[in-house]
Amino acid sequence: MTDRLPILAWDVGGAHLKAVLLNEAGEVQAVVQLPCPLWRGIQQLQSARAGVLNQLQLQDHDVQHAVTMTGELADAFADRASGVAAIVTEMQRGGQVCFYAGEQWLQAGQAVAQPLQLASANWNASATWLAAQVDQALLVDIGSTTSDLIPLAGGRVVCRGHDDASRLQCSELVYSGVVRTPLMALAQRVPFAGEWTTLAAEHFATSADIYRLLGQLAAEDDQADTADGRSKSVAHSRQRLARMLGQDDADASPAAWLQLAQALRQAQLDQLIQAALRVLSRLEVAPEAPLISAGVGRFLVPALAAALGRPCHDAAEYIVAQAGDPALRLAASKALPAYAVAQLYFSQAGQTRLGSTADGGSQP
Amino acid sequence: MTDRLPILAWDVGGAHLKAVLLNEAGEVQAVVQLPCPLWRGIQQLQSARAGVLNQLQLQDHDVQHAVTMTGELADAFADRASGVAAIVTEMQRGGQVCFYAGEQWLQAGQAVAQPLQLASANWNASATWLAAQVDQALLVDIGSTTSDLIPLAGGRVVCRGHDDASRLQCSELVYSGVVRTPLMALAQRVPFAGEWTTLAAEHFATSADIYRLLGQLAAEDDQADTADGRSKSVAHSRQRLARMLGQDDADASPAAWLQLAQALRQAQLDQLIQAALRVLSRLEVAPEAPLISAGVGRFLVPALAAALGRPCHDAAEYIVAQAGDPALRLAASKALPAYAVAQLYFSQAGQTRLGSTADGGSQP
Repeated sequence: MTDRLPILAWDVGGAHLKAVLLNEAGEVQAVVQLPCPLWRGIQQLQSARAGVLNQLQLQDHDVQHAVTMTGELADAFADRASGVAAIVTEMQRGGQVCFYAGEQWLQAGQAVAQPLQLASANWNASATWLAAQVDQALLVDIGSTTSDLIPLAGGRVVCRGHDDASRLQCSELVYSGVVRTPLMALAQRVPFAGEWTTLAAEHFATSADIYRLLGQLAAEDDQADTADGRSKSVAHSRQRLARMLGQDDADASPAAWLQLAQALRQAQLDQLIQAALRVLSRLEVAPEAPLISAGVGRFLVPALAAALGRPCHDAAEYIVAQAGDPALRLAASKALPAYAVAQLYFSQAGQTRLGSTADGGSQP
Repeated sequence: MTDRLPILAWDVGGAHLKAVLLNEAGEVQAVVQLPCPLWRGIQQLQSARAGVLNQLQLQDHDVQHAVTMTGELADAFADRASGVAAIVTEMQRGGQVCFYAGEQWLQAGQAVAQPLQLASANWNASATWLAAQVDQALLVDIGSTTSDLIPLAGGRVVCRGHDDASRLQCSELVYSGVVRTPLMALAQRVPFAGEWTTLAAEHFATSADIYRLLGQLAAEDDQADTADGRSKSVAHSRQRLARMLGQDDADASPAAWLQLAQALRQAQLDQLIQAALRVLSRLEVAPEAPLISAGVGRFLVPALAAALGRPCHDAAEYIVAQAGDPALRLAASKALPAYAVAQLYFSQAGQTRLGSTADGGSQP
């Protein structure tokens, strides 16, 4: 096993780049997340990728790279195929690189030839990995921007959707997250000062503003720009919330804005509850099976589980980290697709070495 | 009357600057609208203002300026008072300038001292002007970004809300328009290919994309940037719609995207129907009284009136233009607050001259 390179797995999102480094024993050694607003152009990925390698003090050739993505939907790209091609080209800068395509691993050339095999496949990695750990569960990965609700039953992923479009349709993908979601997408009306009021349809505030007021969003998970470019302080977050109602912070008490944040949190939770009820109504997942939380929005999952009358576990419980480090396990569970891609590559590579005459190259 | 300057009335919105020029007889002589994305900073207003004057071949001192605004809510400003102050300062560059504050006209110094008198008062000008023309009506001014639903009864404006916040609360302000509204604010789910699907909570597409596909939005009313910075062609609009569903244009037929546009138009119409039903449920407006349409989204009002079982008239019918020019009347009805401010200033100034010893200066 000494010829084996450490695995560096990448999850190229539309707003963040996440990377998980496994050591030669397949344990998490490091997790890095950097902002990467791909809608501003592919050069964002170039600098974020360099930033991750720099932070890990690694060169391209020190590791085996394994890549998954969702960023191809960003509207810097004319369509998803162009997005995949641009991301593949950028991630293929050096070293051995392979791309996760569900059942198989692709080299760059193959990836560009069948782009929709790679497009938004990252959830599939998480689910496939977790299905090998637990028999029955609903995986709930709440990210900065979207949430995945993926049923596992009999040790298999029993999803109905396979791409963004079909997953949006069957509620396995909920386009709602705890950092970037514009508040106008959470609710058309909210209670305030004893009345219902509608919201401004402007990009004035995002879900991170809610969870900053509620004190639930960790600073290291709060990487996206604010809607107005001002700071992430509670005071500025409150002003952004107020603007959604055509008001200023000073027009109501801090308690009133906190109450509004609570109502908006509930609106987001309601979206997730409705989606989970719909997915679970297919009756594939056993009634007593748990929800398993992941992602930077994991803190919402206990409330979701309570609403559904199910137990709640956390993906971190199943993650293997160097020296059992709980901080690394937590960090990896917030970047679950990257961790899962790393583990899937790790076990495939191991099987190949044991069971075939492969040369141990980048495609197991 | 020969000492009287022509009146140039300005409506400073958050995304557009509109100006209506009256001749000495109080007839519309010209209407100009230019894009003015104030969230990018106050210098946008400086160049748009210069652009309007240039297009009209006017100098600051050739006219009496009358100003109303809604742009102070833009998040380039720390709060609304700062927004009013910045806009007042910018509009006060030269010539005689006064600011509409409902019951009164303010000079710049007074305006900055009581900013919330000016904030988002433009709807009030339209309603006050129209209430002098018709006894009973629901004014429906559908703009690029927002819609105003203002009941008139007994020749008076019988509104409940007086600022953005209270108007959002009572549905007299609906934050939904036919150009800039992000589609995520119109609906949480849409029918597509025989199924319900949820939408991406991203700024991928706007309401202008809907009405471009439906062929209902005139090019001269379609001035805001697209969500992805690409062209306003039907093909690019279709790709933006497709992205909201995690798809590309090529993934479905043009007929399918057209059907989606129709469904989104209906979602927007539903917002307006619900708001109008709520406002009309106060029973102030007589049952047979008409809706009176205005704004670049006037084309939606006949369908709204049909849903409410009421006749539909157009504000252009009440507008006085030079030589009765129908194109000028239509243009002014799309910039109704600017036209109304011009007319309100015109009649106030006339009364002052007839009934007082005022010097005919800028404050009647």
